[in-house]
Amino acid sequence: VRRSEGAFVVEGTKLVTGALDAGAAIEAVFFDPAAGAVPTVTMLLQRVEDGGARVFPLGQGVLERIADTVTPQPVIAIVGTPRASLDSVGTATFLVVCVDVRDPGNAGTVIRIADAAGADGVVFCAGTVDPFNPKTVRAAAGSVLHLPIVDDVDARDVLVWLAQVGLRRLGAMPRGGTAYESVDWTVPCALVLGNEASGLPASLDGMIDDHVTIPMAGRAESLNVSSAASVLCFEARRQRNNLHPVIGSTVANEAGNRP
Amino acid sequence: VRRSEGAFVVEGTKLVTGALDAGAAIEAVFFDPAAGAVPTVTMLLQRVEDGGARVFPLGQGVLERIADTVTPQPVIAIVGTPRASLDSVGTATFLVVCVDVRDPGNAGTVIRIADAAGADGVVFCAGTVDPFNPKTVRAAAGSVLHLPIVDDVDARDVLVWLAQVGLRRLGAMPRGGTAYESVDWTVPCALVLGNEASGLPASLDGMIDDHVTIPMAGRAESLNVSSAASVLCFEARRQRNNLHPVIGSTVANEAGNRP
Repeated sequence: VRRSEGAFVVEGTKLVTGALDAGAAIEAVFFDPAAGAVPTVTMLLQRVEDGGARVFPLGQGVLERIADTVTPQPVIAIVGTPRASLDSVGTATFLVVCVDVRDPGNAGTVIRIADAAGADGVVFCAGTVDPFNPKTVRAAAGSVLHLPIVDDVDARDVLVWLAQVGLRRLGAMPRGGTAYESVDWTVPCALVLGNEASGLPASLDGMIDDHVTIPMAGRAESLNVSSAASVLCFEARRQRNNLHPVIGSTVANEAGNRP
Repeated sequence: VRRSEGAFVVEGTKLVTGALDAGAAIEAVFFDPAAGAVPTVTMLLQRVEDGGARVFPLGQGVLERIADTVTPQPVIAIVGTPRASLDSVGTATFLVVCVDVRDPGNAGTVIRIADAAGADGVVFCAGTVDPFNPKTVRAAAGSVLHLPIVDDVDARDVLVWLAQVGLRRLGAMPRGGTAYESVDWTVPCALVLGNEASGLPASLDGMIDDHVTIPMAGRAESLNVSSAASVLCFEARRQRNNLHPVIGSTVANEAGNRP
């Protein structure tokens, strides 16, 4: 339902302020009259009205039914979904692609990490949770508002498209892939993340250029998808930030070849 | 209450098997009679009995009240808490210290990451959530059972002790610290993590040897504590795994000094 509505809910003073700052299309704002005298809320409502959107007082009980948070927020905004198309990220040099991430919290954390690590966008393939699910929006902590997010696209179409626009497709897998630090993340590339439990479907193997693995030191069997995304996205950022990519990648290769 | 009981609950066939594999002190196992004919459950119960612990059939309704999961599990074990003392991790070369991590899911994910990145143990200072909280145990995915966990110790005592045993105290902070890739993680050290919202208390500043920051590329304000722990712990692992730490750290320093 939410996918077709073209709007999503942003909860709380901080995130609504972030939406305004990001120039998001705010359709309406609802607020708790009991919080109407709080200076931060008053100023926020004034900014919303100045921007041409309407503000509505709502009883606490009604606000709680709209909101998804455990702790009711004094301000809630209805924001037009800032959906991006594949074409709009066609000049990206680093994308994160979620093929089948099911947990909204994980998905939101992946968006937040991609943003913090300097990715140019995130692609949510059909099968992955809705990126504008309230839980996802909350876990993304504002990053859904300023990072291009493409969603509801077929995974196979995306993988074909990535090759066409010259992005190397690096698929995360729990074991058996190339050690992530010996992978060259400085080339235009896309990190492709699979399902929390089952990883990437084998049917996509032929459309992945290299499988990437985080070697585990302890007896832990795996990292969860957002922990893995943190390690991989920030390795990409580290390598890309490196003044001496040639020396850097040599060192990384030697490290990666260690048993 | 749980802290004084000296026992915690492990839920599900996989985690109970992990507890047996880790040689944990299993006090009792409860199972759903409806699952008593499932081969994996039958074999597991036999292993428990062979180990000298008792197994009890329990009605689904009762099991659900003991269990904490949304999806009821067919097997639940009561396991003696494998608490470690500071002295038992006195020869560690890499520890993770949680000063004030409040969310049980974050805390468990930190334990799982520390284990996967090869840390020698995790210290939960008083103020941090109970590491044997069911949600923490679940998020740690078995790592509470084989990584030494010290808990309920005073943060100041821990920081003094770290200096005494020669571990460099590296405190994570959202901004303003040394870029994490220019920090030498190959020396004996401890990553010190603060509160999700407020970070490390300023009162501990004098007991931190270096503050460490993950530079953000996007407009994201910060990473959540478990994402940050992923990046930092795996940078430590990467550097420690590196065949050529001198070249590696030179490159890292140059990278870290980039604007």
